[in-house]
Amino acid sequence: MRAAIFEAVGRVAVAEVPDAELREPTDALVRVVRACVCGSDLWAYRGVIPKTEGSRLGHEFIGIVEAIGTAVRTVGIGDFVIAPFQWSDNTCAACLDGIQTRCEHGGTFGAAGSDGGQGEAVRVPLADGTLIAVPGGPSGVDASVIPSLLALTDVAATGLHGAVLAGVTTGSTVAVVGDGAVGLSAVLGAATVLGADRIILMSRHEDRGELGRIFGATDIVAERGEEGIARVRELTRGLGVRHVVEAVGTPKSWKMAIGMARVGGTIGAVGVPHTSPQLGIFTPFVQHLTLSFGIAPVRRYLPDLLARVLAGSYNPGAVFDLDLPLDRVGDGYAAMSDRRSIKTMLTP
Amino acid sequence: MRAAIFEAVGRVAVAEVPDAELREPTDALVRVVRACVCGSDLWAYRGVIPKTEGSRLGHEFIGIVEAIGTAVRTVGIGDFVIAPFQWSDNTCAACLDGIQTRCEHGGTFGAAGSDGGQGEAVRVPLADGTLIAVPGGPSGVDASVIPSLLALTDVAATGLHGAVLAGVTTGSTVAVVGDGAVGLSAVLGAATVLGADRIILMSRHEDRGELGRIFGATDIVAERGEEGIARVRELTRGLGVRHVVEAVGTPKSWKMAIGMARVGGTIGAVGVPHTSPQLGIFTPFVQHLTLSFGIAPVRRYLPDLLARVLAGSYNPGAVFDLDLPLDRVGDGYAAMSDRRSIKTMLTP
Repeated sequence: MRAAIFEAVGRVAVAEVPDAELREPTDALVRVVRACVCGSDLWAYRGVIPKTEGSRLGHEFIGIVEAIGTAVRTVGIGDFVIAPFQWSDNTCAACLDGIQTRCEHGGTFGAAGSDGGQGEAVRVPLADGTLIAVPGGPSGVDASVIPSLLALTDVAATGLHGAVLAGVTTGSTVAVVGDGAVGLSAVLGAATVLGADRIILMSRHEDRGELGRIFGATDIVAERGEEGIARVRELTRGLGVRHVVEAVGTPKSWKMAIGMARVGGTIGAVGVPHTSPQLGIFTPFVQHLTLSFGIAPVRRYLPDLLARVLAGSYNPGAVFDLDLPLDRVGDGYAAMSDRRSIKTMLTP
Repeated sequence: MRAAIFEAVGRVAVAEVPDAELREPTDALVRVVRACVCGSDLWAYRGVIPKTEGSRLGHEFIGIVEAIGTAVRTVGIGDFVIAPFQWSDNTCAACLDGIQTRCEHGGTFGAAGSDGGQGEAVRVPLADGTLIAVPGGPSGVDASVIPSLLALTDVAATGLHGAVLAGVTTGSTVAVVGDGAVGLSAVLGAATVLGADRIILMSRHEDRGELGRIFGATDIVAERGEEGIARVRELTRGLGVRHVVEAVGTPKSWKMAIGMARVGGTIGAVGVPHTSPQLGIFTPFVQHLTLSFGIAPVRRYLPDLLARVLAGSYNPGAVFDLDLPLDRVGDGYAAMSDRRSIKTMLTP
């Protein structure tokens, strides 16, 4: 079959790879209908983190179940399924706590030894604990809903998780640092799922700010650094915001997040700190901050978010602004890396 | 009057200083009955943080009101009062949130321009928002209760705050890193005020471990570092603990705290990070941890803790194991610095 592979920094292409196939009784084989490129895929593409030449790529995909192992019970052949970016047994201690991204038998699609989402098919380990089937199957789904189903595999749930970690609830005032697909999804989650009242999105890209407004942002702040912090404080009577979503993960974004948090506030951190392993904790200490970290347990949120998407009340798929055939995956990476695309969809 | 001053690293003594006096209508003048030495006083004593020669010392004291400004309403002359280690107006936005240690008009006793607690008398700014009077006045208080009243000025509330930040509640399993007066007070607060079920105290000093058991610790772990982490995991079916109180503030103690936290757990951080301004956040990220920081707002906890002490159900004063006249303040610092004393009381 054909799948995207990492050739070198700045070079991603489609190549012939071994066919995906069932290995364990708990596996499902999924024919990919749509995949996409994640902001975190760009770290290796840009050479910020190392990746082995020839590695498989992608962890976000939806598709049709083509075969199942003998132990699989909750999905069947022909089902239209959504895969979180990590598989999980959904029965271990961490899963029972709703932290499926720390499943003791879990793993990430595209990691060594597994199929990547950016390909024609994927072996899904622990299918029962991982996949969610869309009611009615592929024929029951309107094509317009496809992007939102795809967004559920990662960014929609990751953004929402950031807002959940930040303690956002009905009537909250929240600031979102990061106007990528995750930050925008945090705006949508805070506004629609959690009922935040005031949502300040830090964004200096007009198209992203525009989508942020559609998703529910009440204020767009284009300034950065100290100026951005000052502007947010200006908007909040000098107090800062009680809830901040950190959706970038760099030292600069962390500085902004901490600077704009109100005394006693909470920062929900979903931006993977690839380049920022160290954080100064003196300011969090004197500001009485709570920092809540986590790689989003997408599986926890899937049933609820799927129901919202199918009901037409949740449209996280609006983050996709580029739709390419899988063969042009390299163009997709380049477009996202150059910020010409917020998020790129791939069709095998 | 006489008060303790900082002479040099390792040298603290009593000297003649200007008399404490009322300056503002909101001030009270308090004659000190008992003061004490705080673990955080030792940072300058040991030369870890700088302090100006001749600086006043101490932020923990209880005493009798000797005079009040014309605007003071809630305490009167002759009242026996407890002072939190910081003064506060108790009316600003932060105070209304129960974070009196970020009061916009607040300050710390012993800081430049203010009287230290380790002296004969103290000018207390914003007396109404700061002091709590002991019902019945000095004559109504049994001498045996004095140490516990003194402990309320800082460590008793700081330890409890650590457990509150760590999310401890009825039935919780909690680990406390640090067996100083704050760590021990965290054990007491978790057990008595919050109803924790299982309390693991990291302690390798026999006397401190003993007091920890009296305060409610169910397990004492003497091992440190990786061995300490392994032992805590052994005690918790390999999972680690949901709630950790970090009551030290050094890189080593932080490493232990993070290492023993259960996936999705919360660390309540009350150990001031004098020597540890940087924290690696990659592990908190993949472990889904929440880090909750804060200099304890003692004033928030005072009414409740005072009632418990007076009812005889709360005895945080057991941390005092050395009682010296103020003139021997230098011996007190030395004893605490050498870990010969958990906490030293001073009588002017």
